[in-house]
Amino acid sequence: MDLSTLSPFSHSSNLLPPKNAGSRRGTGSAFKQTANRRRAARIHCQKMYVPGFGEASPEAKAAKNLHNFFTYVAVRIVQAQLESYNPEANVDLKQFLENHSINDGDKFCAELMRESPHHKTLALRVMEVRSAYCKNDFEWDNLQRLASEMVTESNTKLMMDYVVETSHVEKDKK
Amino acid sequence: MDLSTLSPFSHSSNLLPPKNAGSRRGTGSAFKQTANRRRAARIHCQKMYVPGFGEASPEAKAAKNLHNFFTYVAVRIVQAQLESYNPEANVDLKQFLENHSINDGDKFCAELMRESPHHKTLALRVMEVRSAYCKNDFEWDNLQRLASEMVTESNTKLMMDYVVETSHVEKDKK
Repeated sequence: MDLSTLSPFSHSSNLLPPKNAGSRRGTGSAFKQTANRRRAARIHCQKMYVPGFGEASPEAKAAKNLHNFFTYVAVRIVQAQLESYNPEANVDLKQFLENHSINDGDKFCAELMRESPHHKTLALRVMEVRSAYCKNDFEWDNLQRLASEMVTESNTKLMMDYVVETSHVEKDKK
Repeated sequence: MDLSTLSPFSHSSNLLPPKNAGSRRGTGSAFKQTANRRRAARIHCQKMYVPGFGEASPEAKAAKNLHNFFTYVAVRIVQAQLESYNPEANVDLKQFLENHSINDGDKFCAELMRESPHHKTLALRVMEVRSAYCKNDFEWDNLQRLASEMVTESNTKLMMDYVVETSHVEKDKK
């Protein structure tokens, strides 16, 4: 189902000036060349304007969320590893998790490091694992594919549900 | 700073059976070949075991979070677009946002569609924009680069802070 046909307006007309377009330095032909390059860049930049992220970008915001998620994943990995060959350390980590939130990954690691020397070793382990997981194990291509499929499927489902619901209402009226 | 030197144990020994390793079909040499291939795949699979995601994967969980994030971004994009040439629709969307949570992107769109015919147009617009944003505008490579830099910088900062703090404590003791 192509949503663009249902849309009241197209977004492709939202042309934004490119980021870091360069300041107006130089004169004469050099300036003309720069101006032409800037105009050409503006014409080719078809990205939509995203407000509300200040100096950061949506990508930076998403990376920050993923960073916290990787810390959570790293804790689960370390727990699974400790379960078999270091049950005592696993109990320490479990008890610590009961009293400390893992929502902020860096805050969690900082607190874990300061709990006791044993906990410091665990914190270093979590930090190492989250780095290795982010850089080697996490399937970035898979993430992109899944997110892309999800948005298509969700949009289709939302419209299907709405159509089914509306048809029922009309049938009831008859 | 290389965390692996500080780690109490290495994770590279965590060898997992590959996903979709294939069922044991066929007999004789065909079976031997399959078995050899599976063994070879297992030896080369050095990914860490991540528990706690049931049948889903961490990538699917992250994609779901990004899906909700894209809906939020799409709403901000649509708001910025409406601001200039359809202030009335912008007010409608703003008022709707005050009374409805955007945390669950699909639920938000479903509710927006059912509010009124005007709101339905807005919902279709949000759905179209989140799809276009996910597939064209969002910089996936940038996300991976930022997350990777973030984990390195955060780990270094956490250890630096700890070292500075510990040195102060030792100085105080003297």
